[in-house]
Amino acid sequence: MTIEATHDLAPAAAIFGGRLAAARAGLAAHGARALLIGQGSDLRYLTGHGAHPMERLTMLVLTAEGDAVVVAPRLEAMAASASAAGAAGLVEIVQWDETDDPYSVVARRVEPAGSGHGARLLVDPGLWAQHLLALQRALPERVFGLATEVTRDLRIVKSPAEIEHLRAAAHAADRVIEQIARGSLIGRTESDVAQEIGERLVAEGHQVAAFAIVASGPNSASPHHGAGDRVIQAGEPIVLDIGGTLADYHSDTTRTIWVTGGDAGRGPDDEFRVIYDLVQRANADATAAVRPGVACSQLDDVARRVIREGGYGEAFIHRLGHGIGLDGHEEPYLVADSGDSLGEGMAFSIEPGIYLQGRYGVRIEDIVVCAADGPDLLNESSRALLVVDG
Amino acid sequence: MTIEATHDLAPAAAIFGGRLAAARAGLAAHGARALLIGQGSDLRYLTGHGAHPMERLTMLVLTAEGDAVVVAPRLEAMAASASAAGAAGLVEIVQWDETDDPYSVVARRVEPAGSGHGARLLVDPGLWAQHLLALQRALPERVFGLATEVTRDLRIVKSPAEIEHLRAAAHAADRVIEQIARGSLIGRTESDVAQEIGERLVAEGHQVAAFAIVASGPNSASPHHGAGDRVIQAGEPIVLDIGGTLADYHSDTTRTIWVTGGDAGRGPDDEFRVIYDLVQRANADATAAVRPGVACSQLDDVARRVIREGGYGEAFIHRLGHGIGLDGHEEPYLVADSGDSLGEGMAFSIEPGIYLQGRYGVRIEDIVVCAADGPDLLNESSRALLVVDG
Repeated sequence: MTIEATHDLAPAAAIFGGRLAAARAGLAAHGARALLIGQGSDLRYLTGHGAHPMERLTMLVLTAEGDAVVVAPRLEAMAASASAAGAAGLVEIVQWDETDDPYSVVARRVEPAGSGHGARLLVDPGLWAQHLLALQRALPERVFGLATEVTRDLRIVKSPAEIEHLRAAAHAADRVIEQIARGSLIGRTESDVAQEIGERLVAEGHQVAAFAIVASGPNSASPHHGAGDRVIQAGEPIVLDIGGTLADYHSDTTRTIWVTGGDAGRGPDDEFRVIYDLVQRANADATAAVRPGVACSQLDDVARRVIREGGYGEAFIHRLGHGIGLDGHEEPYLVADSGDSLGEGMAFSIEPGIYLQGRYGVRIEDIVVCAADGPDLLNESSRALLVVDG
Repeated sequence: MTIEATHDLAPAAAIFGGRLAAARAGLAAHGARALLIGQGSDLRYLTGHGAHPMERLTMLVLTAEGDAVVVAPRLEAMAASASAAGAAGLVEIVQWDETDDPYSVVARRVEPAGSGHGARLLVDPGLWAQHLLALQRALPERVFGLATEVTRDLRIVKSPAEIEHLRAAAHAADRVIEQIARGSLIGRTESDVAQEIGERLVAEGHQVAAFAIVASGPNSASPHHGAGDRVIQAGEPIVLDIGGTLADYHSDTTRTIWVTGGDAGRGPDDEFRVIYDLVQRANADATAAVRPGVACSQLDDVARRVIREGGYGEAFIHRLGHGIGLDGHEEPYLVADSGDSLGEGMAFSIEPGIYLQGRYGVRIEDIVVCAADGPDLLNESSRALLVVDG
């Protein structure tokens, strides 16, 4: 996302200028004094600056009155200036040296309270505790809240360009799933397969291969199993849940396959076929129900009902899905107690699962966009049960 | 780091049992009530549980009295149980469901205050603000501080096994630096080279290729330049600063090369050779000064003096280095205002640089361990100026 100074800055100025203006309007609407946004996805969204979270503070200070400053360590001042918002002159860069106190620099920018915009300061949800505690010490009279109050309404609806980034990431992950499913698996450790998935995600254009769940046999009953030393055997399922970032946007897809070792007698047993079919129908029915105005809790219920009526309600032990974009998990969450409804341009996972402890599990996960007329499926790899030699 | 239940658990029990006991002793010594450790490197260090930071809270609650509980979302309870400390029975796993409030679960574990161990609660420095603010709401009478008070003394000294993990990661990064320096560079964008670095780090065994600074020509004067769309030209330097994790431990190394395009007339100019020589000597002198008892500030000064006496003191705009281990940046920091001294087993970067705005820059970075008798250099790729066709 670094925009070189030689580029045409007009589109960047329009995109990030619009986002900063919307954030200012949100501050005023929520009666808050300022956004304090450290390194991470909110900073990238509002300024295009892709600095990584670390012990040195970089922070966008955006006040309802109009101040837009990025406080950055001196060694990153050039990078901050070269960011989209920096190069377009939308933010002022204020640098601090290695032995300076950056928190007092931020504090001076939000004092005095002035104005009728309230006193609350809203920090990004991923801001590190070491930064938040230091800000609380530097600004002891202030009440701190989450910037999500303001940023969620902006980030929850994806632009057409953002959706195309998500689609490209999804298609890359689809190709990796297909490559792994067609490859040699039996006799290898889960970790070894996870390593190959990482290599293939990067080879397919991902900047970062963030995670690869390879959950074989009984491990497939653990939804967030970490790939370990277990050796994959013939006659068992493998849950593959993989993702990372491509052009800053996340992929996240899950397929469950069954490896036979070429022995037709080691195919899926009857109960596995039953639960696979339930999960596949839950995924399909929830996806088909996607349209603007549908409650997130209702979508969760559509999937849960299929599995409950099939007799496995207790084994679907997690929410249906999560939003996705610059973060791997973000708003909206498709969960029973959500108060949100879908809107056009929202992007999220649909990932029902059934987990039978000590035996096996199944999960099928797609990224779906809520389009004006229904679901836009970003993942395209087959959702049918894939029985392979492995 | 996932330890399968079929493994010999004795070493894991000894390692993590010892770390948890040391952390409890640290709590008592610092007069604090409990450590509240979310997902991240402190959790991995204390329990072997490698859960990733996310919106769902996983938290080790370790009290001075002896309670050791990992509060985990239900879908990760199996993974938490399979972690080294979980499988060895060193921690109790308490699971919460998707619509439960995990913060009240944590709050119940630290109330009532009881005991003479004080009331402060210490959170890991990377805990997300959304979790810290929710804990502050759930425990309004409590004072929150940083777990670093307790964990820094444990983590700052690496065991022989940890040093070998760091060495393996360093050697893998060395090989990637050598592959890139020998490869084709001119005419490619920085981003394209960064992508290749990511692929090669993973191919050399890294789990995650965390970053790749490819700073060509004038961009090399920006220490934390993000690789961008600039096309590499003949007759300029490139700063390559790369790293990631291998077996959970970080690599981080920097080399500065010069590409000529095969034209002897496009080699480094005289001033570049002068600043390269200063940075190389600063790196070598600081490394040679490493031994137990030397102040971190003094090591910074050793390097800074070489560059200052060469006339470029103002152009060395960052600290000399940072500790490294399960985090890419951790204690100790080699910076002018540090009060720390080196001890045997500490691991850190030594990375002096000179940055001439609008022209070019040089940085040379190695990971060094402070051994009983002096420096143990983990990086082995050549530090001499590499002039290549590119």
